[in-house]
Amino acid sequence: MMIVMKEGATDEQVAHVVERIESAGAKAHPSRGEFVTVIGAIGDDREMIASLNLEGEEGVEKVVPILKPYKLVSSDFRGSDRHVEISGRRIGGGTFGLIAGPCAVESREQTLTTARAVRAAGAGFLRGGAFKPRTSPYAFQGMGLPALEILVEAREETGLPIVTEVMNLRHLDDVVEVADVVQIGARNVQNFDLLREVGRAGVPVLLKRGLSTTIEEWLLSAEYVAREGNGDVILCERGIRTFETATRSTLDISAVPVAKGLASLPVIVDPSHAAGRRELILPMARAAVVAGADGLIVEVHPAPETALCDGPQALHAEEFGDWVADVRRCVDLMGKVMAGEEAAVSA
Amino acid sequence: MMIVMKEGATDEQVAHVVERIESAGAKAHPSRGEFVTVIGAIGDDREMIASLNLEGEEGVEKVVPILKPYKLVSSDFRGSDRHVEISGRRIGGGTFGLIAGPCAVESREQTLTTARAVRAAGAGFLRGGAFKPRTSPYAFQGMGLPALEILVEAREETGLPIVTEVMNLRHLDDVVEVADVVQIGARNVQNFDLLREVGRAGVPVLLKRGLSTTIEEWLLSAEYVAREGNGDVILCERGIRTFETATRSTLDISAVPVAKGLASLPVIVDPSHAAGRRELILPMARAAVVAGADGLIVEVHPAPETALCDGPQALHAEEFGDWVADVRRCVDLMGKVMAGEEAAVSA
Amino acid sequence: MMIVMKEGATDEQVAHVVERIESAGAKAHPSRGEFVTVIGAIGDDREMIASLNLEGEEGVEKVVPILKPYKLVSSDFRGSDRHVEISGRRIGGGTFGLIAGPCAVESREQTLTTARAVRAAGAGFLRGGAFKPRTSPYAFQGMGLPALEILVEAREETGLPIVTEVMNLRHLDDVVEVADVVQIGARNVQNFDLLREVGRAGVPVLLKRGLSTTIEEWLLSAEYVAREGNGDVILCERGIRTFETATRSTLDISAVPVAKGLASLPVIVDPSHAAGRRELILPMARAAVVAGADGLIVEVHPAPETALCDGPQALHAEEFGDWVADVRRCVDLMGKVMAGEEAAVSA
Amino acid sequence: MMIVMKEGATDEQVAHVVERIESAGAKAHPSRGEFVTVIGAIGDDREMIASLNLEGEEGVEKVVPILKPYKLVSSDFRGSDRHVEISGRRIGGGTFGLIAGPCAVESREQTLTTARAVRAAGAGFLRGGAFKPRTSPYAFQGMGLPALEILVEAREETGLPIVTEVMNLRHLDDVVEVADVVQIGARNVQNFDLLREVGRAGVPVLLKRGLSTTIEEWLLSAEYVAREGNGDVILCERGIRTFETATRSTLDISAVPVAKGLASLPVIVDPSHAAGRRELILPMARAAVVAGADGLIVEVHPAPETALCDGPQALHAEEFGDWVADVRRCVDLMGKVMAGEEAAVSA
Repeated sequence: MMIVMKEGATDEQVAHVVERIESAGAKAHPSRGEFVTVIGAIGDDREMIASLNLEGEEGVEKVVPILKPYKLVSSDFRGSDRHVEISGRRIGGGTFGLIAGPCAVESREQTLTTARAVRAAGAGFLRGGAFKPRTSPYAFQGMGLPALEILVEAREETGLPIVTEVMNLRHLDDVVEVADVVQIGARNVQNFDLLREVGRAGVPVLLKRGLSTTIEEWLLSAEYVAREGNGDVILCERGIRTFETATRSTLDISAVPVAKGLASLPVIVDPSHAAGRRELILPMARAAVVAGADGLIVEVHPAPETALCDGPQALHAEEFGDWVADVRRCVDLMGKVMAGEEAAVSA
Repeated sequence: MMIVMKEGATDEQVAHVVERIESAGAKAHPSRGEFVTVIGAIGDDREMIASLNLEGEEGVEKVVPILKPYKLVSSDFRGSDRHVEISGRRIGGGTFGLIAGPCAVESREQTLTTARAVRAAGAGFLRGGAFKPRTSPYAFQGMGLPALEILVEAREETGLPIVTEVMNLRHLDDVVEVADVVQIGARNVQNFDLLREVGRAGVPVLLKRGLSTTIEEWLLSAEYVAREGNGDVILCERGIRTFETATRSTLDISAVPVAKGLASLPVIVDPSHAAGRRELILPMARAAVVAGADGLIVEVHPAPETALCDGPQALHAEEFGDWVADVRRCVDLMGKVMAGEEAAVSA
Repeated sequence: MMIVMKEGATDEQVAHVVERIESAGAKAHPSRGEFVTVIGAIGDDREMIASLNLEGEEGVEKVVPILKPYKLVSSDFRGSDRHVEISGRRIGGGTFGLIAGPCAVESREQTLTTARAVRAAGAGFLRGGAFKPRTSPYAFQGMGLPALEILVEAREETGLPIVTEVMNLRHLDDVVEVADVVQIGARNVQNFDLLREVGRAGVPVLLKRGLSTTIEEWLLSAEYVAREGNGDVILCERGIRTFETATRSTLDISAVPVAKGLASLPVIVDPSHAAGRRELILPMARAAVVAGADGLIVEVHPAPETALCDGPQALHAEEFGDWVADVRRCVDLMGKVMAGEEAAVSA
Repeated sequence: MMIVMKEGATDEQVAHVVERIESAGAKAHPSRGEFVTVIGAIGDDREMIASLNLEGEEGVEKVVPILKPYKLVSSDFRGSDRHVEISGRRIGGGTFGLIAGPCAVESREQTLTTARAVRAAGAGFLRGGAFKPRTSPYAFQGMGLPALEILVEAREETGLPIVTEVMNLRHLDDVVEVADVVQIGARNVQNFDLLREVGRAGVPVLLKRGLSTTIEEWLLSAEYVAREGNGDVILCERGIRTFETATRSTLDISAVPVAKGLASLPVIVDPSHAAGRRELILPMARAAVVAGADGLIVEVHPAPETALCDGPQALHAEEFGDWVADVRRCVDLMGKVMAGEEAAVSA
C-alpha cells in the first residue's frame, strides 16, 4: 500500500508512519515529492497491514491499497474460470448452470409441478425458498422447515439438485442437511457470522450480491467463506439499487466480466429480482449469458398471478420450455454446455 | 390502494381484479377513464391486501398504495414525538440522548478511560461494540463476549446505560442480559429473524438505517420489532450509499424530519460512520441536532490513531468535553434537555 | 391523474381541489374511502394538468399520474420498433446500426485511418468528436470546427454517414450542416434550449441518457425534440452513476427493453463510456445486442495508448474486424441486418 | 501522481511508462515491490500530466492522482473562507447571504410583492427565474427576457441585488447586463462552454452542484470559471440523486464542510429543491447553517398553491418573517452577520 501524506506533513509525522509500518514487519519507502511525501509499504500480509489503520495518523492524507484486499478467492491466486462441483454437476469452467423453480415453496403440489416443468425444459438445478426475507412483516414469510421436505421429494422425483436459502443460524443445520447449494441472500451478504458458519459447513454456497454492495465488498464476503476452508462459492449478481425506478433494481451486467476477472469463482445472474417484471427477464437473461455468466437463476411458477411471493416476475411454468430454448441459443453461441447435459456431450 | 389497469385492458381483466379484491374482503370501485380504468380497493387490512399480489394479474399496469405499509410505528396511529425510556433515562419527547464511546471494546483500560471521559463531558449513554461487523475477514472482529463484562463494569462505575450491538441470534441472550439498548446495525436492518427475536426480548432497540434502505423500508423493519410487542425502537440515520466518494457515505439529514413525521419513534443520528473523518463530525452533529434529531451516537477513543477499528472517525477522548459544549448550544437552541440532566432541570 | 388527499383533509380542501381541476377543463371524481379521499382527474391534456401544481394545495398528500407524461414519442401513440432513416441507411426496425470511430478527431491522419478501418470491419456509421466535454479544464477540449472538415473528408472517402456531437448553440448551424446525425451528449440531456433547437433543425438526433437521468426523464427530453416536429430521435444508453467504482459508470442494459417498450424510438448502446476499460466492451456490446438494442456506438483508435481522450476504453483499429465479427454473431442471432448491408440482403 | 503497474508487467512496459512521463517534462521514480511496481511521477503541471492518459498503456493497472485536479479554486492556493463581493454586499468570510424570492418570475405583481416581503423579512438578495429548465416540455418554461425588466424594477424598489439563472449562451449578454449574480443551474454544471463564457463575463457566479456531480467534479467546473479570470464563484449544494424517494433529492449537507475544506470559495445551500416539500425546508436550512454554510437560497411565493413552478416547496411570503427569525438564531450561533446588515454591525 502507499500512504500519501498531507501537504505540510512534518518529518516527525513521516517518521512516525514509517515506524508503525516497520513495527508491523513491513518495509517502508518514503519518497519526498515537490509537494507531498508518499510512503510505500511493501509486504503481503493483509492482516498485518489492515491492523495499522494509518488513515487515523496525524499528517496522513490517504492510504492507497495496491494489492487486492482478498486473497483466497482472487484470480491471481487460483486462476480464473474455475467450476464448482454440485452433486455431480458443474457450474463454471464451460458448464452453464440453469437454476429454476418457484420463489417460495408454497405447497407440495405447486413445487412438484414446477420441478417437473423446469426439468423438462432443461434446467439443471431446482430452486425454492423455505424461508423468505420480506420487506413487510405483513407479507408471506415462507413455509419454513416443512418446505425442506417438499424440496427433497422434488429432488428425488426429478434428480435436480436443490438450491435453497438460509437466513438464520438456527436453521443452518437443517438447511445444510438437505441443500445441494446453500444460498446466502442479498440482505445477508454482509452477515459475517452466517458466512463463516456456512463456510465451515462445507457445502457449495451461492452468494448473492447485496443491493448496495460493491464488487470488492462482495468478493470480501466470499473471502469470509473461503477462509473457513470452503472455496466452492458461486457469485450471483441480482441487481443494485440506483435512482432508476422503472425496474425493481438495476441489473449490473458488467459485474459479470469484472467479477470473473478479479476472482476465481463462477458468476451467475438472477434476472428475475432485478427486473421485477416478467417481460424483461428474457432479454436480461440473454444479456447475462453473452456477457459471460456461468449460469442463471430464475423464478418459475405454475400460476404466477396467484403466487404468494413475487408473482409479477415469475415465468409461467408452461411457457418455460420456449424460454429455455431461446436462452440456449446464447449458451451455444458462447460454446458452453448446459449443466446436466455434460454426459450427453461426452458420450 | 388503487389498481391502474393498462390501456386496452379487457372487461374480463377488470372484473377479475375486482373479484380478487372482493374475495379478500375489501371493496372494489372501478372507475373507467378516457384512456384507462382505475380500481380503488377500500379496506385497511395490510395483511389481506399484501397477499393479493395484483401486479401479477393480466391487464394490471401498476398498484398504487394509498395507506402507509406500516401501522404500529406510524405517527397516524400513536402520535408523534414520543420518547423511549432506558433504565430511567429518556431519548425523544424533548430529551436529547447523547451516546458516546469507543467503536469497539478493545480492552478494559481503553473502555473505562473512554467511559469516564464521555460521562465527564456530558454524554448520557455509553456505546461500545463487542462484536464488530467488518467488511474484510482480515480486520479486527471484536473481542466478543468478554467485552460485555467490561461494559458492565464501565456502567457500574459511571452509571451510564449501555448501548451495544447484536449481530447473531446465538449471542442474543447474552447481549440482552447486559445491554440497556440493543443495537441492530446497518447491515442487519433487514435481518428479519433478528428483528423479530429482538422484538420478543423486550429491550429497547436502536435500529440503524441500512446503507441502501429507503425510509419506508426502515420503518417496515421497525414494524417487525413492534409487531412482537416491543414499541421501544429508536431509529438511527447513519448515512446512505451514493456515488459521492469524498465521504464514507452520505448522511441523509433530511431523513430526520421525514422519519419523525411518518413514525412515532425517536430518531437519532450517527455522524461518525457517514463522515468517516474526524473533522466532519462536529458540523454534521450540529446539523443533525437542529434538523430535529433526538440524539447522537458518536465514537470516542483515548488514542484514535491506534484504534483497532475506525480510528480516523473517532473523536479524541480528551477533546470530547469541548465537542459536547459546542453541540450543546444547538441542543439548547432546540429547547431540549440532555438525557441524564433531566433531574437537574426538574429540581 | 389521481389526487390522494391527506387523512383528515377537510371537505373544503377536497372541494377546492375539485374546483381547480374543473377550472382547467378536466373532470374530477372524488371517492371517499375509509381513511382518505382520492380524486380522479380525467382528461388528456398534459399541458393543462401539468399547470395545476396540485401538490402545493392544502390537504393534498400526493398526486399520482396515470398517463405517461410524454406523448409524441410514446409507443402508445406511434407504435413500437420504428426506425430512423439516416442518409439512406436505417437504425431500428430490424436494422442494426454500428457506429464506430475515434472519441475525438485529433488529426486528419488519425481520423481517416480509423474511418477506413471501421468501414472495412463492417461499421455503418462514423463517429468522431469535434467538441469534447471534459470534466477538467486542463484536458483536451477537441479540435473544434476544423474537425468537421476532416469528418466530411472521411465521409467522402468511406461513404459512412457521420455522427458528431453539438455542445453549444453557437456551433449548431455548423454542426448541422455537416452531420448526418447530431449527437446530444449525456451532460446536455436536459439542456432544453439545445434540444428545442436541434428539434427545429430537422436532422436525426442521437440522444444520450444522462448519468443520473431516469428513463422517464430521458423520454421527456426526446419529447422536447419531437415537439419541434422532429421525431427522428435515437436513444442511447451510456451508463448511469451508481456507488460502484469498478466501472466508470454502470451500463443499464435493462434500459434497452424498458425504453423500447415505452417509446417508439430506436435504442442503441454505448458500451465504451460505461465500461471505461477496453476488455469489458466486447461482453457489454454482446449483452446490449441480445437485450434488443438497435445499434452500438463504440470508440476505435489506431493507437489508443496515445489517444488525447479516453484511450483506455478505445478499441484498437487493427483488431476491430475481429471485434465486429464477434458482435455480428449476436446480431445474426437476433435476426437483424447490419445497417449498410441491407442492399446485399435484398439483392 | 503514481502509476501502479499490473502484476507481471514487463521491464519494457515499465521503461515505456517512465519514458512517457519524462517526455512530458516530469520526473519518474519507479519502485519495485514484491508483487508490483509503482512509478511516482513528480511534477506539478496538471495540463502536462493530464495529457498523458497513462491508463491506456500496456501493463498499467491504475493511475493514482496525488495532487488535487483543480488549482485556482483550491484552498491550498488561495486560502479558505474567502468571500465574494456582490454590489457592495458579501457572501462568505463571516457574512451570511440569504437569497430569497420566487422560483420563477410570473408577473410584475407577484415579483414585487415577494421582493418586498423577503426584504422586510431580512433577506439580503432577491432570486427569481426568467428562464426555467423544466423536465417536461409541457410545463411552464419561464417568462423569458421580460422577466429581467421586472427583476430590475424589484431591485430598484427594494435595493436587493438580483440572482438569476442563465441557461443559454444566446441570452448571456442580456442576463449579465441585469444580474448581480448569474446562476448556473444544476443541469448546466458541466455545460463547459457556458462556464467559460460566464467566466469571461466577469460577474459573480452562483454554481449549483449537479444531481450526480461529485464534489471534485463540481470544483473542476468552478475551475473552468476561475480559469477565465473570474474567481468570484459561490458554490451551491442543492441535493443529489439517490435511491431515496421520500425527498425530491438528498441534500448532501456534508458537502458544505467538505467543499469549504477543499476550495477557497463560499458554499451556500438550496434546501427548497432537495426537499421538494415546504415543511422540510426549515429543518434543512437550520442544518445547513450550523454545518457552516455561507448562505441559503430559498423559494418564496405570495400564493404557493397557484405558483406556476415548484409551488409545493415554496415558502409563504407572509410567513417568511418568522421563518427568517428561526434561521437567524442559527446564524447568530455561528457568529456570522447577515449580508445587508454589516453596516448596522460596524456602526
